[in-house]
Amino acid sequence: MRELQMAKLNLIGGAGVAALMAMAGPAAADEGMWTFDHFPAAKVEQAYGVKIDQAWLDRVQAASVRLTSGCSASLVSKDGLVFSNHHCVVDCAQELSSGQTDYVKQGFLAATRAEEKKCAGMQAEVLVSIADVTQRVTDAAAGKSGQDFVKARDAAIGAIEAEGCAKDPKFRCQVVTLYRGGQYKLYKYRKYADVRLVFAPEFATAFFGGDPDNFNFPRYNLDISFVRLYEDGKPVATPQHLTWQTRAPKEGEPVFVSGNPGGTDRQLTVAQLETQRDLALPISQLQRSELRGRLIRFSEEGAEQKRTATDPLFGLENSFKVFFGRQFALNDAKFMDAKRAAEAELKAKVAADPKVAADVGDPWGEIGKAQTAYGDLYVRYRMLEQTAGSLSDLYGYAREIVRGAQERAKPAGERLPEYADARLPLMAKQLLDEKPVDTPLEQLYLEFWLSKTREYLTADDPATKLLLGKESPEQLSARLVSGTKLADPTVRKALWDGGLAAVQASPDPLIQYVLKTDAAAREVRQRWDTEVSGPTDRAAQRLARARFAAYGDAVYPDATFTLRLSYGKVAGWTYRGVTVPAFTTFSGLYERATGSEPFELAPRWIAAKDKLNPNTVFDFVTTNDIIGGNSGSPVVNAKGEVLGAAFDGNIHSLGGDYGYDGSINRTVVVSTAAATEALDKVYGETALLKELTAK
Amino acid sequence: MRELQMAKLNLIGGAGVAALMAMAGPAAADEGMWTFDHFPAAKVEQAYGVKIDQAWLDRVQAASVRLTSGCSASLVSKDGLVFSNHHCVVDCAQELSSGQTDYVKQGFLAATRAEEKKCAGMQAEVLVSIADVTQRVTDAAAGKSGQDFVKARDAAIGAIEAEGCAKDPKFRCQVVTLYRGGQYKLYKYRKYADVRLVFAPEFATAFFGGDPDNFNFPRYNLDISFVRLYEDGKPVATPQHLTWQTRAPKEGEPVFVSGNPGGTDRQLTVAQLETQRDLALPISQLQRSELRGRLIRFSEEGAEQKRTATDPLFGLENSFKVFFGRQFALNDAKFMDAKRAAEAELKAKVAADPKVAADVGDPWGEIGKAQTAYGDLYVRYRMLEQTAGSLSDLYGYAREIVRGAQERAKPAGERLPEYADARLPLMAKQLLDEKPVDTPLEQLYLEFWLSKTREYLTADDPATKLLLGKESPEQLSARLVSGTKLADPTVRKALWDGGLAAVQASPDPLIQYVLKTDAAAREVRQRWDTEVSGPTDRAAQRLARARFAAYGDAVYPDATFTLRLSYGKVAGWTYRGVTVPAFTTFSGLYERATGSEPFELAPRWIAAKDKLNPNTVFDFVTTNDIIGGNSGSPVVNAKGEVLGAAFDGNIHSLGGDYGYDGSINRTVVVSTAAATEALDKVYGETALLKELTAK
Repeated sequence: MRELQMAKLNLIGGAGVAALMAMAGPAAADEGMWTFDHFPAAKVEQAYGVKIDQAWLDRVQAASVRLTSGCSASLVSKDGLVFSNHHCVVDCAQELSSGQTDYVKQGFLAATRAEEKKCAGMQAEVLVSIADVTQRVTDAAAGKSGQDFVKARDAAIGAIEAEGCAKDPKFRCQVVTLYRGGQYKLYKYRKYADVRLVFAPEFATAFFGGDPDNFNFPRYNLDISFVRLYEDGKPVATPQHLTWQTRAPKEGEPVFVSGNPGGTDRQLTVAQLETQRDLALPISQLQRSELRGRLIRFSEEGAEQKRTATDPLFGLENSFKVFFGRQFALNDAKFMDAKRAAEAELKAKVAADPKVAADVGDPWGEIGKAQTAYGDLYVRYRMLEQTAGSLSDLYGYAREIVRGAQERAKPAGERLPEYADARLPLMAKQLLDEKPVDTPLEQLYLEFWLSKTREYLTADDPATKLLLGKESPEQLSARLVSGTKLADPTVRKALWDGGLAAVQASPDPLIQYVLKTDAAAREVRQRWDTEVSGPTDRAAQRLARARFAAYGDAVYPDATFTLRLSYGKVAGWTYRGVTVPAFTTFSGLYERATGSEPFELAPRWIAAKDKLNPNTVFDFVTTNDIIGGNSGSPVVNAKGEVLGAAFDGNIHSLGGDYGYDGSINRTVVVSTAAATEALDKVYGETALLKELTAK
Repeated sequence: MRELQMAKLNLIGGAGVAALMAMAGPAAADEGMWTFDHFPAAKVEQAYGVKIDQAWLDRVQAASVRLTSGCSASLVSKDGLVFSNHHCVVDCAQELSSGQTDYVKQGFLAATRAEEKKCAGMQAEVLVSIADVTQRVTDAAAGKSGQDFVKARDAAIGAIEAEGCAKDPKFRCQVVTLYRGGQYKLYKYRKYADVRLVFAPEFATAFFGGDPDNFNFPRYNLDISFVRLYEDGKPVATPQHLTWQTRAPKEGEPVFVSGNPGGTDRQLTVAQLETQRDLALPISQLQRSELRGRLIRFSEEGAEQKRTATDPLFGLENSFKVFFGRQFALNDAKFMDAKRAAEAELKAKVAADPKVAADVGDPWGEIGKAQTAYGDLYVRYRMLEQTAGSLSDLYGYAREIVRGAQERAKPAGERLPEYADARLPLMAKQLLDEKPVDTPLEQLYLEFWLSKTREYLTADDPATKLLLGKESPEQLSARLVSGTKLADPTVRKALWDGGLAAVQASPDPLIQYVLKTDAAAREVRQRWDTEVSGPTDRAAQRLARARFAAYGDAVYPDATFTLRLSYGKVAGWTYRGVTVPAFTTFSGLYERATGSEPFELAPRWIAAKDKLNPNTVFDFVTTNDIIGGNSGSPVVNAKGEVLGAAFDGNIHSLGGDYGYDGSINRTVVVSTAAATEALDKVYGETALLKELTAK
């Protein structure tokens, strides 16, 4: 998942994003990631003179797709064709590749539908309905606290999800927590578990400029891809899709982004932000940075290492930049002062209304208190539970198999929430789909995790001793990775289907390792629920009520990787006297190319230079308020035509997790105009183009 | 240089070190890194009942040694034998090694004096006199500001140093800035440029427990080494040396640490600390962490890579822990509140005395203003000037050769201060001494620096374009490292001696590269002097006067890698109800060994187990106030006998850069008792033992 972006780190210490930001109070112009059942159409009409009616909303919702790779997308033909970003399918392209055929480097072009290839673990989901279940969830947890609160709430959610979709395996039901507990809604999705890759350009084309240009603008990235939804071996009929617009957007044109922003923290209290700033962000970034270094060096050890590390390194560097931006947004004293002022305002409003004050109590104080427990437990929780195994697929398989067997043996209401019945099908798909495992990388990840756990918990911690015994991280990771058979999906399936008895009897060293060591992780998770997330979530419900009382309808919920609509317009921006135009063109790409990675053109692009219209609008920026998870979101106009796919944010969006400033925050989009021209002139994809432009 | 240490990172978010700390006001019990000409002997007598008279001070000063490897040490025989830490000579052991003979892994044991081997670049220095030159330096810069202030001050310092030692090449003169500009003192040292390695144990013995145990206690490290001073090819006669004590110290015994604490920041203003916390520390740590990851992976690529990376990785991980501790000390809100309170107290005292107030003005405001420039320039200054070339020796050689030629062509008062006449001999020694260059590591460092510079300044910055041209960091670093001849000391000597004409005519690609690119670094350095260090240093002089006026003699200067004496006693500590005893023994070492790195015993120690007295005191802790640079410092008793060498600090010293808390801060020492027993029973070093214990 490409997350909201930043860059130009030399702006650190500059004016930053704080001053003008709306701070979790009522939304400012163009601000907000609105749910489809609560879109501020009147405000939009007033600002932009365009009418967004229910028919428009229904149509766009029905064509909006969520990908379980952590992205957004849109239906763009009647035959299940889906438009998204390249970086949303790069995992798939990597997993379909081998030492012989590298679809990441060369691109993937299916000449016929028969050549379209299934993406392991990927599911596409289209939202079909939203129902309010707030009362039922809050009633279930009423009067409870700590871990009891968490359990009762999660049990109610699990039951609602199970009931909601029990009758139809083609649907997925998900209870979404909005406003940090202020609302609970049941989202029902039509799901498609067979998603196939149709088209992906070369990595060098999709990600031209690489990490140095990531989160910058002007940009020159053809960050597009197409996948197709299949069911019963055939393309899915999708009469409700967006119209592919081949013309470029215009400056000032109103545009809407329909997608799934992954998460924001705009409604956190100041105490929570301080914990992020002083503890969680620094530690996660220091660890990420070391892993990045290990991975970079690994990728330089040979051609195969370079190939296999491309996608994980891209993901890691992208996250690093995202969290770098967040860290420095919070390190900005002015930004935090604005947050403090917003919090003081809300507190004053609550205090001024005795009825609200009596209902709300002191959620700030309660959340503040939970920060102490957060501080005491964070490193332990992070190392043993949150990031266990680092990025190792094998470790992840082993843990899901072990926990799955243990949890499924319990009654529904007693399980860890991710093992609730409604959540098992997707988990099983992702566990059991065939995908390649790269042994050297797996060992690198496991070794990294074990050595960092020893470092951060110390060698003398009982958990470290349990994890390592007398072995070193290097020895242990080598032994586990070379001995396990979990790379084989049939082995995983036998264990998953076999349940606890099969798991306990398994001679697999990684299964046995998780059976032996997972208790330490479960223990800290339980403490975390009891001392941190329970008290925090419980207080956050009342904080949400305080906010509703103070600002009514004018607030939108923090992002939750569920469908949202944001509005805005095509526009550049001006910062410190420098104006950045809204558009780039193909000619700029050729000017920026140096011949050296990551500013190297793919051979097809060198060859096609004279055929391409150099003035084609390539990428453009808009004022829409988005964040990571929105990658691949269709950017549509008031007619419901798709003009591009959002793939990035500009530098000033760096604090977007915590707030939005419409004067300088921008969404970065790859245009359908560029995609059309490239498919035609560079790739010769006439069948695909015909499908896109069919009337 | 091992720096003051911390660890047990799981204590993050705990009570921290803040509450009891003296905060740059008058020193608390056992606090302080005192100059030998201002030692609080009366206070020590009152606290410990021992008399430290001038004769004692003179004797200890004459036996205290500063090593240019960034360490401290002591003379322990009449024949120039010097006692220090293993980690103070590990560079030397590494440089004397090859793929065939690995003195780091196997240890270095010279059976005879003929086998003692010269350490490249190392110089030992013994302080012989201190003279006050405050008036002359402050007068020279009086009334000046910005870069003029810096230039005038540095010119005066350069002139004083040149005059002070002009007549004798066996001496080194150094003007030391104390109290951040409150005092300037001329330190005159007897210098010894031929330092030879006598004894170093195995890395596994000196650094048992490795990075996981670093900055922890209990510890089991024989972190000792011996070197010998030579002159004219013969051992130097050193009648003034410390007596080697073979008995272990006693609980509560008063002890003194005589050494060179590298630097502290206890007298920084709150604004300066905030800049460190929010900007400089996070960025330096993120970069250090990535380099660490690259180096770890590099070290796993083969036996030779492991050998060559051992020392740099050790240094990098040590620094990482040090700065991790500093970061989290500053991230502790209570700690910063205490700093704010101390600053407010000093401001109030100044305001209460109109004469002082008129003299001092508002240094806090001026320093605060300079923080804005710091923020604007930091990344640029760091990447282009401070850390240019990363750890590449070759790049360092090239820059010193180029700048040396350019600067030496100027009159003394116009040069960059490090090229002042008095400073050239040591620079030339370090530049020209023969030492091996590891090409793969060199490329790793250069590539890292170039890629981080592009990342942090962006690809579009003119400096990035100047540095990279059309090449990638990978291509450019490979080309420069493979093409340069600077690994050869005769090539370096020809260029150093040849001056600017020879340098400009050199075909060496690295010399030409620095000639082409160094202007960008010089430019930002000049801006830094003008906008950051000039205004800051100028204000700091008056801040020091404010502190003298408020607290008189009861303040000690921030550490400056010059000789200091700290006092305290042998004592464990109690934290959160857990008491840590003051001593470890050999038996604990054998209990802790797992057989896996870094808890693996060297073969000699496995073999010697039954011969060793298991109850020998191995390492111990004291209340002395030290910091990085103190490594290798003799820990002496009131009789002037050496009881051990300081080599570390405990976890609670983590904020020691910013303050001291005698209740939990501890110095970690390897005992002479352990050294004696090990030299005898493990290493059979009878000649060395005889020399140490000679009457």
